[in-house]
Amino acid sequence: MDFLGLAQKYGTPLYVYDMEKIKANFLDFKQAFAGRKSLICYALKANSNLSILSLLAQCGSGADCVSIYEVKRALLAGIPKYKIIFSGVGKKSSEIKEALELDILFINVESQAELMMIEQIASSLQKVARISIRVNPNIDAKTHPYISTGLSENKFGVDMDLAKQMYLYAYKSSTLEPIGIHFHIGSQLTDLSPISQSTQKIAELARSLVALGVDLRFFDVGGGVGICYENEQVIALYDYAQSILKALNGLDLTIICEPGRRIVGEAGYLLSSVLYEKSTPSKRFVIVDAGMNDLLRPALYGAYHTIQAHQAQNQTQQNKSTQDEPTQSATKADIVGPVCESADVFGKDIVLPPLRSGDILSFGNAGAYGYSMSSHYNARMRPAEVGVFVDGECECECLLKPRESFEDSVAEELKILHSHQATQNRDENTKNTKTKE
Amino acid sequence: MDFLGLAQKYGTPLYVYDMEKIKANFLDFKQAFAGRKSLICYALKANSNLSILSLLAQCGSGADCVSIYEVKRALLAGIPKYKIIFSGVGKKSSEIKEALELDILFINVESQAELMMIEQIASSLQKVARISIRVNPNIDAKTHPYISTGLSENKFGVDMDLAKQMYLYAYKSSTLEPIGIHFHIGSQLTDLSPISQSTQKIAELARSLVALGVDLRFFDVGGGVGICYENEQVIALYDYAQSILKALNGLDLTIICEPGRRIVGEAGYLLSSVLYEKSTPSKRFVIVDAGMNDLLRPALYGAYHTIQAHQAQNQTQQNKSTQDEPTQSATKADIVGPVCESADVFGKDIVLPPLRSGDILSFGNAGAYGYSMSSHYNARMRPAEVGVFVDGECECECLLKPRESFEDSVAEELKILHSHQATQNRDENTKNTKTKE
Repeated sequence: MDFLGLAQKYGTPLYVYDMEKIKANFLDFKQAFAGRKSLICYALKANSNLSILSLLAQCGSGADCVSIYEVKRALLAGIPKYKIIFSGVGKKSSEIKEALELDILFINVESQAELMMIEQIASSLQKVARISIRVNPNIDAKTHPYISTGLSENKFGVDMDLAKQMYLYAYKSSTLEPIGIHFHIGSQLTDLSPISQSTQKIAELARSLVALGVDLRFFDVGGGVGICYENEQVIALYDYAQSILKALNGLDLTIICEPGRRIVGEAGYLLSSVLYEKSTPSKRFVIVDAGMNDLLRPALYGAYHTIQAHQAQNQTQQNKSTQDEPTQSATKADIVGPVCESADVFGKDIVLPPLRSGDILSFGNAGAYGYSMSSHYNARMRPAEVGVFVDGECECECLLKPRESFEDSVAEELKILHSHQATQNRDENTKNTKTKE
Repeated sequence: MDFLGLAQKYGTPLYVYDMEKIKANFLDFKQAFAGRKSLICYALKANSNLSILSLLAQCGSGADCVSIYEVKRALLAGIPKYKIIFSGVGKKSSEIKEALELDILFINVESQAELMMIEQIASSLQKVARISIRVNPNIDAKTHPYISTGLSENKFGVDMDLAKQMYLYAYKSSTLEPIGIHFHIGSQLTDLSPISQSTQKIAELARSLVALGVDLRFFDVGGGVGICYENEQVIALYDYAQSILKALNGLDLTIICEPGRRIVGEAGYLLSSVLYEKSTPSKRFVIVDAGMNDLLRPALYGAYHTIQAHQAQNQTQQNKSTQDEPTQSATKADIVGPVCESADVFGKDIVLPPLRSGDILSFGNAGAYGYSMSSHYNARMRPAEVGVFVDGECECECLLKPRESFEDSVAEELKILHSHQATQNRDENTKNTKTKE
């Protein structure tokens, strides 16, 4: 991809997505489960840009959503309601009501209190709520503690015994229809064994529920399949699918899986412009215009995103003419952003050539949990998002979301401020008039 | 403050600010430096709501800004340009140009390369750029490493020797006017000694520059004065001012200080509704509707915000009638949000009474780095902000920013999606027409 051209055309910081790669990654999941009843529900939390969702919808994707706003995004992008799942530990009653009215595939229930709430709301709507219960298998996913979710100390799901009680309750309820069983042990998983252990445990529970008459139709294995950020081994999707199919042996259920990161992660880049080089006796800093507000993962998880330098044309030419000079050699540098925190660092001791203002650094694997976690910290505007497609033999790009504008960002506050000022002025005028009288 | 009433009226999650406290905190700073030439420049990064800025402007505040957008916010709120400072390691050339055109008090320069950039831009605008240099005193601020900024391994400022060279360069330049000297060693400082050591070091440098003929007028001690989140000792503002004044002895400079957290931190609360209680054999979870996207500090720094329960009226009455029942006793709970991460926790093992859906939990000390670091993670809408004032003997509240709307949040993406779809349809129609022909 022509990172320099894209940066020039759209400005930086800029998110760029390889749309062909997103499509291919999705089709890899379909392929892994080919010949079996399966539904791939893309996890919107990784990246919920409507154009990305629309592309996935066209490929047949469903949606795994963790807020009613994600449900609405999925629908807007053309994902059919019967392929949409609503998960999350903290669904508000208004969200549950809306999800039931929108008639999505099912709600993943995370607690007994939520089950009661759903039953009550469904009853008041005179609807039957299709549900699935998120079971916490108490298995260590061996990932970053922040994104490990399958241990009993985590807030997610319910334990096996309680799940069984809840299924039997739902089975007897006239307003609850338990059609799925669900688990999700964490994110960025790179080891197959906790997944296959969990699948076996949950499949056993499913078997006992079916034997008791519960009409399960979906076995939702969650998502979390990892990608390679630095030097992680990644799970082959064929092995992943096989281990799940093996554990399901004898259970005639549609498999649902909820990949997010694995579909969009490697397909995304954050482009940033080099602003300054700065050297102290002990350190070389490369200061770029992207910050922790644009890409939070390094500050939040200590995550690493591959860093590549793209030197602007005039400099490349100059490099060529002086290529025998030793000063052009690459050295170690800390790549830092403009935000007012020492955590605003994209990489330490990264070997890079000498850089100049206007050169571009690309941060790789930024398609997942990049834009979706971005903020306005330091009153910064969030970046634009661009998709790159292949049309025939041409690579062409297309804006997916424009850069935020300052005017939009202050509009609501300014309206309020002006109305306060108008009130103050009026009060003062009244006071003055009264004094004169 | 009537948290239950506010939550009911504006919904949750909700940021609430005690505007009288903000004013009083600002005036405490003024008072600490009373009788000395001083300018308090509120640090917008802590909270840049326009109504808060407007209140501070009316009290005489200046502004410390770390992006051109913060500069523009300060101006919109009525802070005069001659009280505005622009700091930050990564200023884009477009930001520098705009700052010079807006004719603010001065730019805090953070590197030699930036100094050159400013000189070049000022020259092309035929302006003289007023500057100050951020000197890194290489002193350990003894705070969280993410917000410690005064060590030579940090990206901020330049060392003493380089600073001197840069001042002499600027002194000779016809387009640079070095009028200030600046340092800022970190945030949430609770120990006076690193501040007073740094002040002494920088004052010494200032004295030598004045002796060389540099016409310094401002001595900018940065901000970072801490507040009490849990059990931290806080620095008394009188002692703070005295230690600075003592170190400045003999230097006739206007003192600038840049408090942010100390002015708004304790004045802010995040209100959230209890959604569910959930118990496992080993844990009690209270699930609330605020998440790490609304208040990032616990997940990012492991920070603690005081948690208080406010039980809805009907329950309080019920408690009264059954107050002799032992089941009403408070027990330990983890307070967790709805976001899809195990880091979405506001507190562990917090002693709280039994809670019900609709009760309110308030998170204290949330006025600084709360809303300003909030995001849309999980496609969530950012909370509303409300200010509480005292008018005569009445407490009255006023909306400072409305809750974000889903329609606004997808508007730009939807426009783009529809235009793609229109193009696709046209292309297909063209294809069909051609086939028919």
